Amino acid sequence: MNAELRHIIEAQQFSREWLENEFFPLTDEMRGIFKQGGCDILSGKRMISFFYEPSTRTRASFEFAMDYLGGNVVFSTENATQFSSVAKGETLRDTITVLNRYGPDVIVLRYNEEGGAKIAAEASSVPIINAGDGSGQHPTQALLDLYTIRRKLGRIDGILVAMIGDLFNGRTVRSLCYLLGKFSDIRICFIAPDEAKMKEDIKDYLRRHNVSFVEGNDLRVVAPEVDVFYQTRTQKERGTNISAMETGLFVINGEVLDSAKDSSIIMHPLPRVGEITLEVDSDSRAVYLTDQIDSGVFTRMAELKMLLS
Amino acid sequence: MNAELRHIIEAQQFSREWLENEFFPLTDEMRGIFKQGGCDILSGKRMISFFYEPSTRTRASFEFAMDYLGGNVVFSTENATQFSSVAKGETLRDTITVLNRYGPDVIVLRYNEEGGAKIAAEASSVPIINAGDGSGQHPTQALLDLYTIRRKLGRIDGILVAMIGDLFNGRTVRSLCYLLGKFSDIRICFIAPDEAKMKEDIKDYLRRHNVSFVEGNDLRVVAPEVDVFYQTRTQKERGTNISAMETGLFVINGEVLDSAKDSSIIMHPLPRVGEITLEVDSDSRAVYLTDQIDSGVFTRMAELKMLLS
Amino acid sequence: MNAELRHIIEAQQFSREWLENEFFPLTDEMRGIFKQGGCDILSGKRMISFFYEPSTRTRASFEFAMDYLGGNVVFSTENATQFSSVAKGETLRDTITVLNRYGPDVIVLRYNEEGGAKIAAEASSVPIINAGDGSGQHPTQALLDLYTIRRKLGRIDGILVAMIGDLFNGRTVRSLCYLLGKFSDIRICFIAPDEAKMKEDIKDYLRRHNVSFVEGNDLRVVAPEVDVFYQTRTQKERGTNISAMETGLFVINGEVLDSAKDSSIIMHPLPRVGEITLEVDSDSRAVYLTDQIDSGVFTRMAELKMLLS
Repeated sequence: MNAELRHIIEAQQFSREWLENEFFPLTDEMRGIFKQGGCDILSGKRMISFFYEPSTRTRASFEFAMDYLGGNVVFSTENATQFSSVAKGETLRDTITVLNRYGPDVIVLRYNEEGGAKIAAEASSVPIINAGDGSGQHPTQALLDLYTIRRKLGRIDGILVAMIGDLFNGRTVRSLCYLLGKFSDIRICFIAPDEAKMKEDIKDYLRRHNVSFVEGNDLRVVAPEVDVFYQTRTQKERGTNISAMETGLFVINGEVLDSAKDSSIIMHPLPRVGEITLEVDSDSRAVYLTDQIDSGVFTRMAELKMLLS
Repeated sequence: MNAELRHIIEAQQFSREWLENEFFPLTDEMRGIFKQGGCDILSGKRMISFFYEPSTRTRASFEFAMDYLGGNVVFSTENATQFSSVAKGETLRDTITVLNRYGPDVIVLRYNEEGGAKIAAEASSVPIINAGDGSGQHPTQALLDLYTIRRKLGRIDGILVAMIGDLFNGRTVRSLCYLLGKFSDIRICFIAPDEAKMKEDIKDYLRRHNVSFVEGNDLRVVAPEVDVFYQTRTQKERGTNISAMETGLFVINGEVLDSAKDSSIIMHPLPRVGEITLEVDSDSRAVYLTDQIDSGVFTRMAELKMLLS
Repeated sequence: MNAELRHIIEAQQFSREWLENEFFPLTDEMRGIFKQGGCDILSGKRMISFFYEPSTRTRASFEFAMDYLGGNVVFSTENATQFSSVAKGETLRDTITVLNRYGPDVIVLRYNEEGGAKIAAEASSVPIINAGDGSGQHPTQALLDLYTIRRKLGRIDGILVAMIGDLFNGRTVRSLCYLLGKFSDIRICFIAPDEAKMKEDIKDYLRRHNVSFVEGNDLRVVAPEVDVFYQTRTQKERGTNISAMETGLFVINGEVLDSAKDSSIIMHPLPRVGEITLEVDSDSRAVYLTDQIDSGVFTRMAELKMLLS
């Protein structure tokens, strides 16, 4: 496995060895290329950005990553469901088959239903990168999250991660759990309102991979022990309406900061809608607007380089 | 006529001589350039993609075609009706006049009403390519369809073409009829439900050009004689709702394949929504996901080269 | 002030000296570069087009301007409100912070509420160009309008400008008033229906800057004296519904042309929806489809060059 990377579909596909021996070192290298203003190693390569759902950060960071490597985004669509032939009922499989004939070197796909990336990969002879498929997975987010943790904490084994908020609909926390399951002595606290608890499939996976986890509904109880606060957003567009989020049990604010370890970090996949108060932004432990964003560009540069060269 | 190609507005504008002596040979040449990974003959040239209606394939294939020739897509919009000043009531004529001042070398225009391309061409001093105007025409689709037929069958004269489905709203079949009218001994079977028959203007054109045609409502009757199956899609967004399509009289499936000639080909402008069953995809006669798509890139490369160099 | 241009946020930020000694000469130079087909002075520079509201002309002219200078548009979105994380509730400040981390050299921002550009500039370490923020300002439109006036009339001091139409919602006339206030002996006639009069804040500004103005409701009364007719559009999407526009009191037509000075010019920020009749288009005094559009590209080239090199 991972001897040759063909597609990026789901977080489980990566082994610890690949992450540590190939992906992290290459991402470190990409960081250097970014700081130099880019390079030409993907010169002449062609990327398609094919997004069926809104995304600013994911699409922009992939398109910037391609640019920093000297490649071209030859075709980009923002909302394929509404604006492309998909609106006319075309199946994803036909669409991917057609896009393949145009001669792209990679297709970055955001799909609006779980499982879309796998279907696309089956139909594609060029690499598919899953940029999120419905409430399924968001593996490139998990890769950037994991790289951020490793870079800021210097290690992954043995950490305590609090995942907070709407865990039921959060594909980023799902994908991150799959990756954390590859490491040792990981402990996870799921802090969620009753109506937005982590689904059973992930808990089963964690049990099988010897990741210990607990569930709670008050962030303040566990805050002093946490290494990584991973805050998420209420996905109103997926039907969740968590009034409990308003009560403060799930919000990262000055009070939580005061009780948290100096060595902890605070992450969020963004966009936030109040789950982290503005006073947190300037705290040195907050990485959601800085290192975590940077990691998005660096890791996506590494993914493109691996898949295309 | 066609001594100098200024715009691509409607299928009728092309002569048989131009098609055979200029367009097909140049498209063959473009096929070679594509296989080599592109060239630079349109380096420094600027294209605008201006689409008032959704389209994945048409926009993507034009933008890829421009890229393979070394040109740039400087401005691209997916749904001008909703997102541009058109939403504010600007006339097409003003829009084209304004776009001309920016200095593009070509404007690829998809418009949402019949006749838009002609209006645009009148207002434009740079070439306009009609990428579909409402239920009017889609001449570049007809060119790629004709090139596909010639390449796969080796000839156009004397063929029997079955056009199937929603012929009332299908601009691709309309445009293809105009082109077929330039050739000899063409026979066409229009296979459509009563509520979606080919319009009279096309039938008049065919009569004037000595193309014999018949109308029917069961594909299976004519299948054994057909050289080119040209299946189309029910255009629900234009008001057609053909329940008869469900009955199998108009569907290409294994049964139709069994009775069809080995030398026939099966085409579809895509997207399909069930008019061709999945079992047909792997048949060697099916070209709608292979050669027909490829022809889209090659012919559009030829069109851009003719108009721009 | 203006010693170093960091952002383009509002028309007031520019001094007369800067306009005359730096901006106009540089724009003249850009005109020459455009006519030569472009240059490479911004080679390697990266622009983000981030539009929360529809705009054909503004986005296209900025993207073409960047291209003529050899720079790249690395990320472009047409309607961020609907298609980006903004739809999920992300604040503008977070969005701009994130975009900054990707390493752009400039962000062209169209926002849907007044004051957005200023908020963005506070959060941004790279230049922000305000491409219109709600009913607030549209400073780059004002710069192109002023450049057009100077180029066509040869002067700005001492002119009589008629601003006509929906002045209540017109951000272009607001921004132009701020710029005109920097010059001497300017006279302005606001010709608007009662329900769409110019707001008090602009009138106060003009009084403080010794610009004399009058208000009227019949264009024909003042037409013979006017140097610059600046027609605007009824902004139905902002709630204005001016039936009086239909009566001819506010329309530029052949009758107005006949009474206007030979040396006058007729401007419109476009799109128009009937406020200027088609017979006016071919009059040599009409610049809204010619010089005014050209000025949009030239001035935006100058803005990008100033901010980026």
